Amino acid sequence: MKILIVHAHYEPQSFTTALKDLAVETLVAAGHEVRVSDLYAMHWNPVASVADFGERKNSDYCTYALEQRHGFENGSLAPDVLAEVEKVDWCDLLILNFPIFWFSVPAIMKGWIDRVFVSGRFYGGKRFYDQGGMTGKRAMLAFTLGGQPHMFGIEGIHGEIDLMLRPLLRGALGYAGFSVLPPFAAYHVPYLSHEGRQQILVDYQQRLLTLDTLEPLRFPSMGDFDERLYPKA
Amino acid sequence: MKILIVHAHYEPQSFTTALKDLAVETLVAAGHEVRVSDLYAMHWNPVASVADFGERKNSDYCTYALEQRHGFENGSLAPDVLAEVEKVDWCDLLILNFPIFWFSVPAIMKGWIDRVFVSGRFYGGKRFYDQGGMTGKRAMLAFTLGGQPHMFGIEGIHGEIDLMLRPLLRGALGYAGFSVLPPFAAYHVPYLSHEGRQQILVDYQQRLLTLDTLEPLRFPSMGDFDERLYPKA
Repeated sequence: MKILIVHAHYEPQSFTTALKDLAVETLVAAGHEVRVSDLYAMHWNPVASVADFGERKNSDYCTYALEQRHGFENGSLAPDVLAEVEKVDWCDLLILNFPIFWFSVPAIMKGWIDRVFVSGRFYGGKRFYDQGGMTGKRAMLAFTLGGQPHMFGIEGIHGEIDLMLRPLLRGALGYAGFSVLPPFAAYHVPYLSHEGRQQILVDYQQRLLTLDTLEPLRFPSMGDFDERLYPKA
Repeated sequence: MKILIVHAHYEPQSFTTALKDLAVETLVAAGHEVRVSDLYAMHWNPVASVADFGERKNSDYCTYALEQRHGFENGSLAPDVLAEVEKVDWCDLLILNFPIFWFSVPAIMKGWIDRVFVSGRFYGGKRFYDQGGMTGKRAMLAFTLGGQPHMFGIEGIHGEIDLMLRPLLRGALGYAGFSVLPPFAAYHVPYLSHEGRQQILVDYQQRLLTLDTLEPLRFPSMGDFDERLYPKA
């Protein structure tokens, strides 16, 4: 399997970084090929802007998705974006590895999605969800957070974690066609003992070695909707 | 009323920008004070990093929220962050004005939240939701998107818009204590006629002049949870 890990943490000694390092080590030892995009180390630019486009389709008015599509088709997209698109094209499994910031990815990773999930390749027209450009590939979130599992139950103060993460799981990864595996959540990290953290590493390694046993999350199927995207009767 | 509009769009001629301009004009004409943070024009840096801190609490290992709290208390946070915190402190109503990117804010605005919603002022310890630092202030999202309303019904292909936006509405604004007004959504913008867009401007102006009639969204109340944040029996 070919695996791309996109990693975002501002502190190289962080536990989030330890999860990334463990994933690389475990997956390589299991015979897989692994590439890493370490966004902080790369000084990744997260800001989608007109600077992402060389020759413009419309130089008077920028519609980001239309220029993405045009730039991808003629190879004039910014080189840092094209390099990441190439890595995603290459991989069978995409892992986003990050600390939760406001129940989502940190901005540097949001900007990786904004700029790399290009119209025309990842989605376009009626090509999304199970018709998205990334069908056949899997994706998984692996993240750290301060909260504890009981805060994310149905009755929990923050509600279910998959609902809080819906725009990522369904709105970005699922929309682009990835088969989205259940997220791996490392809860309560800043407050755990050394032993508590070691247990998470054991659990994550186990998870990484048993990905094939996981049932992907369920999202809408385009076949259930008509041409205008109304539900079929 | 004192109103802060945080605006993010890469195209100055965009309809999203027209919504921002209309809001400024309408609210000033109605006697309110308005300030605008135009993130693209300001070249806002969205990346949370160690560069945000002057004198560090722990110079060997950075925990972003802890350094935020420390830096806010002693005034050593990055000046661009402090300037935005001051604007939020000043305002009675915060409007986030943006185009939907992957069912969320563009990265430049996510990074405004990541860096500006500082621990110690916006939240901290058990101070969140109705105990959050921003209680007494209101907040509202105003955004443009390509999708149409029927795609966001309970049976719609993307599910309810408030669920897709949950990490923003509840996980960021609600968590920080804001009273969150229902979002203003400008649907189908890239495909609308001139008349269709004019109608949205009329609707938005009407919305801005009747904010007091809106019922805020409902989020958890800390009083319903015990010390360890388990639901009270």
